Amino acid sequence: MNGKNAWKQLWLAYDKKKELGNGVYVEKVSLIGFDEENRVVKSALQELKKGVSGMLGVTAEVTEKDAEAKGLVLKKCDELPKESYSIKEEGGKLTLMAGDENGLLYGVFHLLRQISMEKKLSGMNVTCKPDNPLRMYNHWDNMDGSIERGYSGNSFFFVKNDIVIDERTRDYARLVASVGINGVVINNVNVKQAASWLISDRFFEKVAELSKIFADYGIKFFLSLNFAATIELGGLDSADPLDERVIAWWKEKMKECFAKIPNLGGFLVKADSEGRPGPFTYGRTQADGANMLAEAVRPYGGIIIWRCFVYNCKQDWRDYKTDRARAGYDNFIQMDGDYAENVILQIKNGPMDFQIREPISPLLGGLKKTNQMLEVQVAQEYTGHQIDVCYLIPMFKEVLDFHTYCKPGADTVADVISGRTMGNQNTGIAAVINTGNDANWTGNDLAAANLYGFGRLAYQTSLSAGDILDEWIPMQISTDPEVIKVIKDILLRSRETYEKYTSPLGIGWMVTPHDHYGCSVDGYEYDRWGTYHRADHLGIGVDRSDKGTGYAQQYYEPNATAYNSVESCPEELLLFFHHVPYTHVLKTGKTLIQHIYDSHFEGYDEAEGFAKAWDGLEGKVDAEVFANVKERFGRQLANARDWRDQVNTYFYRKSGIPDEKGRTIY
Amino acid sequence: MNGKNAWKQLWLAYDKKKELGNGVYVEKVSLIGFDEENRVVKSALQELKKGVSGMLGVTAEVTEKDAEAKGLVLKKCDELPKESYSIKEEGGKLTLMAGDENGLLYGVFHLLRQISMEKKLSGMNVTCKPDNPLRMYNHWDNMDGSIERGYSGNSFFFVKNDIVIDERTRDYARLVASVGINGVVINNVNVKQAASWLISDRFFEKVAELSKIFADYGIKFFLSLNFAATIELGGLDSADPLDERVIAWWKEKMKECFAKIPNLGGFLVKADSEGRPGPFTYGRTQADGANMLAEAVRPYGGIIIWRCFVYNCKQDWRDYKTDRARAGYDNFIQMDGDYAENVILQIKNGPMDFQIREPISPLLGGLKKTNQMLEVQVAQEYTGHQIDVCYLIPMFKEVLDFHTYCKPGADTVADVISGRTMGNQNTGIAAVINTGNDANWTGNDLAAANLYGFGRLAYQTSLSAGDILDEWIPMQISTDPEVIKVIKDILLRSRETYEKYTSPLGIGWMVTPHDHYGCSVDGYEYDRWGTYHRADHLGIGVDRSDKGTGYAQQYYEPNATAYNSVESCPEELLLFFHHVPYTHVLKTGKTLIQHIYDSHFEGYDEAEGFAKAWDGLEGKVDAEVFANVKERFGRQLANARDWRDQVNTYFYRKSGIPDEKGRTIY
Repeated sequence: MNGKNAWKQLWLAYDKKKELGNGVYVEKVSLIGFDEENRVVKSALQELKKGVSGMLGVTAEVTEKDAEAKGLVLKKCDELPKESYSIKEEGGKLTLMAGDENGLLYGVFHLLRQISMEKKLSGMNVTCKPDNPLRMYNHWDNMDGSIERGYSGNSFFFVKNDIVIDERTRDYARLVASVGINGVVINNVNVKQAASWLISDRFFEKVAELSKIFADYGIKFFLSLNFAATIELGGLDSADPLDERVIAWWKEKMKECFAKIPNLGGFLVKADSEGRPGPFTYGRTQADGANMLAEAVRPYGGIIIWRCFVYNCKQDWRDYKTDRARAGYDNFIQMDGDYAENVILQIKNGPMDFQIREPISPLLGGLKKTNQMLEVQVAQEYTGHQIDVCYLIPMFKEVLDFHTYCKPGADTVADVISGRTMGNQNTGIAAVINTGNDANWTGNDLAAANLYGFGRLAYQTSLSAGDILDEWIPMQISTDPEVIKVIKDILLRSRETYEKYTSPLGIGWMVTPHDHYGCSVDGYEYDRWGTYHRADHLGIGVDRSDKGTGYAQQYYEPNATAYNSVESCPEELLLFFHHVPYTHVLKTGKTLIQHIYDSHFEGYDEAEGFAKAWDGLEGKVDAEVFANVKERFGRQLANARDWRDQVNTYFYRKSGIPDEKGRTIY
Repeated sequence: MNGKNAWKQLWLAYDKKKELGNGVYVEKVSLIGFDEENRVVKSALQELKKGVSGMLGVTAEVTEKDAEAKGLVLKKCDELPKESYSIKEEGGKLTLMAGDENGLLYGVFHLLRQISMEKKLSGMNVTCKPDNPLRMYNHWDNMDGSIERGYSGNSFFFVKNDIVIDERTRDYARLVASVGINGVVINNVNVKQAASWLISDRFFEKVAELSKIFADYGIKFFLSLNFAATIELGGLDSADPLDERVIAWWKEKMKECFAKIPNLGGFLVKADSEGRPGPFTYGRTQADGANMLAEAVRPYGGIIIWRCFVYNCKQDWRDYKTDRARAGYDNFIQMDGDYAENVILQIKNGPMDFQIREPISPLLGGLKKTNQMLEVQVAQEYTGHQIDVCYLIPMFKEVLDFHTYCKPGADTVADVISGRTMGNQNTGIAAVINTGNDANWTGNDLAAANLYGFGRLAYQTSLSAGDILDEWIPMQISTDPEVIKVIKDILLRSRETYEKYTSPLGIGWMVTPHDHYGCSVDGYEYDRWGTYHRADHLGIGVDRSDKGTGYAQQYYEPNATAYNSVESCPEELLLFFHHVPYTHVLKTGKTLIQHIYDSHFEGYDEAEGFAKAWDGLEGKVDAEVFANVKERFGRQLANARDWRDQVNTYFYRKSGIPDEKGRTIY
């Protein structure tokens, strides 16, 4: 990458690939049943041409309908569901059938993926349909250009309180569409200052222009809303969702928004959370707030995505009764069924906040009559700031595969958010994105695996974490089997390694306050955030059983019972659910304290192993990529060492129990 | 105080006072031996007129020489030392004799103080001479208007990278001159950005104007210097103090400074400290750096004040050998005697950094052939941010009275910095000031006691902490004996109270990092600042004896031996010098852990008592002052409660030893 304005194309770089006879299939392209002038169809054809030209040196030409004996037929097929496609090769002819334009686009990207992975197109026979109706990226970009929890530069949407549209905008849309993303929220959920004015004449023109670029790639355009916009924009003295003036203002405003912003999908709202305004201010329920907005966007087919991240962020650490983990469920469960059809509740994967290990939020599937959307975080806020390598797809898989026991036969989180459990349409999955204006988009080049992987997983939940790497590594880094093996090994183990050298057994939060990188065992222990480990000289952990805060009882059986006792609780979550003595013997036969020591020494050693393995790739991957990742491994090692030594020292000093193996603790 | 631009006159408010027959002495004023046109004499007369007019309703008139039978004679007296004065009343005539103009000004303020305190002028017979040649306030004001460690608004010298001169500037000069301050450094010791250009044409004109206002009140004007100015301003590639080009640049620059800034006293330099550049960068000694600058200012009678706050701020907490406490002594002791006559080393009172309790820096008096200046901090960085009440004069008294044993008969810190020990002239005392552009100058109205008290103490070291309050309270708050009693009691106990609810027995640093307000027991424990308490499940403290870091050996005998053993170490410093088990029995018969619990409960209770006592003053002090202090007591109580509970909980969790009295620990 040369020059500061250059940026990478990641897995769409379309470098020359091995010739496997794929060229013959894509030189002649017939289009049947699709309008060549449709903006998404245009994008698909454009992408196809660009891809095969770069990778195969072939010029794809759109010919008369189905004329050629050999070639690619792109054909609309009404029997296929929306956003679905099938690809079949027979006798030298490749037929891509798609349910709609998005299906066509995704099918084209599938073909290009095959080529990029250096796989043959001959003999193909696949049908793909999306598991989740909504597959979204949420940007936490602020209009001043900063990104809340951004670790790869500043925003490429916003600079100095204005919207920027350039070639990068389109590349962004291409990248996320290529992995099946069909919705994007471009601004931070904490909507303040200039961002409140995105839904006003001050920005409508540019917002519309931006939204059209997304439209080209079948991506619905969403904005985060300021619930107090009636006050800040409307000049009213209230944001009460039952106030007639407020209702009228929003109706008018939504009419205006949908008229002026083509391709608008709806809005994301963070209300009554961490200082943001919301219906609670007016003694109203969350449903009152969400439904009022939903009613205003309904005429235009819009949806309201309402975040469930509502908790008391001014807790007293002395208070052992209040449990932040309970808050999401407690705040939302009683209104189950009260939400309008075009409202979706967006629920973070865990009950706390994106820790490296948490139980699954009991609200997911706990709600039985409400549209739900899972929120995960690809941005590595608590998982290493895109300095430390941490491939998150294994974690997301655990979440999706979790049995909530909400309904026999369709009880996993994946079932709930796909609509399979309730038969609903407005559901899906969203991730807080990890991009910025760094040339490589994600800070650490290896963090692009998460950017790629989330989209793929959202589209096709059955993909394994390894399957996704088998796609991403050859597409973005190298098709060399040795390189693939090394990187795949690093990435697949990276989450567990990060967990090992940070906080043990699900307790979380031993992190530097505010910044969320680096160790501070007591950093949150005496603070107001409801995030405590309660370590004393005898033990550690939070009793969330029925003898404690009762959080475990928010789950259906048999989960509730399993979590309720030390014996049956999954050990990786032991300290989340129980206060346990350091001398407690784990299933491995180790005491808890010895587990803490061992895992921290192991975690550091593993990180060291990753760094060494990476060093072995010098000359086998792009020099710039090599240097980028090497530099970050250097920082990861320093971080892992700090974590290891601080955590071990903290618990040694507190417990007085020495490491059995006599390793250095300070 | 009305309007946002209004500000208070503090102890110079000159409200109407009780008539005790004082008027007769000051109606007719004769001036003998002084030039009425001298700027300091002018100020003295102006102040006299203003003061007696306000307090006594009398117009002071300067008459012909010594003409009147009754009245005030202001007379130069060459037998009196510089800045000294005597006041004597005989037969209705008051004679103020002064050694020079500053002496005259201070004498006039002495008279006004008597009147303000409602004391009679009849029968007066005092002689006052300053104990310390230099009595300085150091501002840590940045040119952007912020104040490093400022707790009472922004700078009134600098706004948006420019110098502001208005009526407040003069009032500031009056206030500090009234307590005997004769030197002020107006800008932060961390000289960056615009501040580097204070010694350039960009600012010379305004700097000169500002310095003249100080000249009117006998205050020498100082600037903090950027040691790397040769690079940043001069365009050289080096700041090496032995480089001929560097030497030449500074000579020329100083010539220019002294030509363009009248009343310039010299410069304050923070070098090789916390990221600031300095001679170490070039392999030179601190003496090389200081002497080079001293040589450049020598022709103009200038002095260089060189700070000794040099330590490794990138320490590893795992390292038990390196001791930040040792750094000042280790870095400066070997060059004792190498510094030019017009260099003064400015030494913080303790070896760490302005904690509520530290031993006295062994460098004070440890140096035997070097000019020394004591630096204390009136700004309440670690002592409550001018939210919590903390009268610091008792602490400063302890420092001044400390026997260093450097020279028989003249071995206290007061002796060293007054020049009595070595017979030197360039010595004194400086304080980091606590002012800002708040209407009341100091945030908490009670913090003005420190602003006042430091100056008075600097001039007359023998004053007790109580003596100073007997002056300040009636001058600024009320002459009502009951009010005086209550406030005096609060202030005299306030430092001990703050100490009780914060970190125990001299260990310090259990404070929120960076911000330095509020409790964070482990906040600095695993950080790079060299500030550790080393608490484990058995005990706490740092072994600085000859078996530990050896810091205790930096003192002369008998101090070295006293500090070296747990038995003889003063208990208020026990944890600074020793790692002690929680079960260690103190002289009170309490265990260490019980002392921690007791002192923290007591500290909170005492703070509560202060707040209640203050409530009793409603209607007896100015309503605005009452409200201001009451609001702060509210915040102090919240802070004291946090400290109490966090510290007690931390040590209970760590030691497992319960409070004997069974009070609530979490």
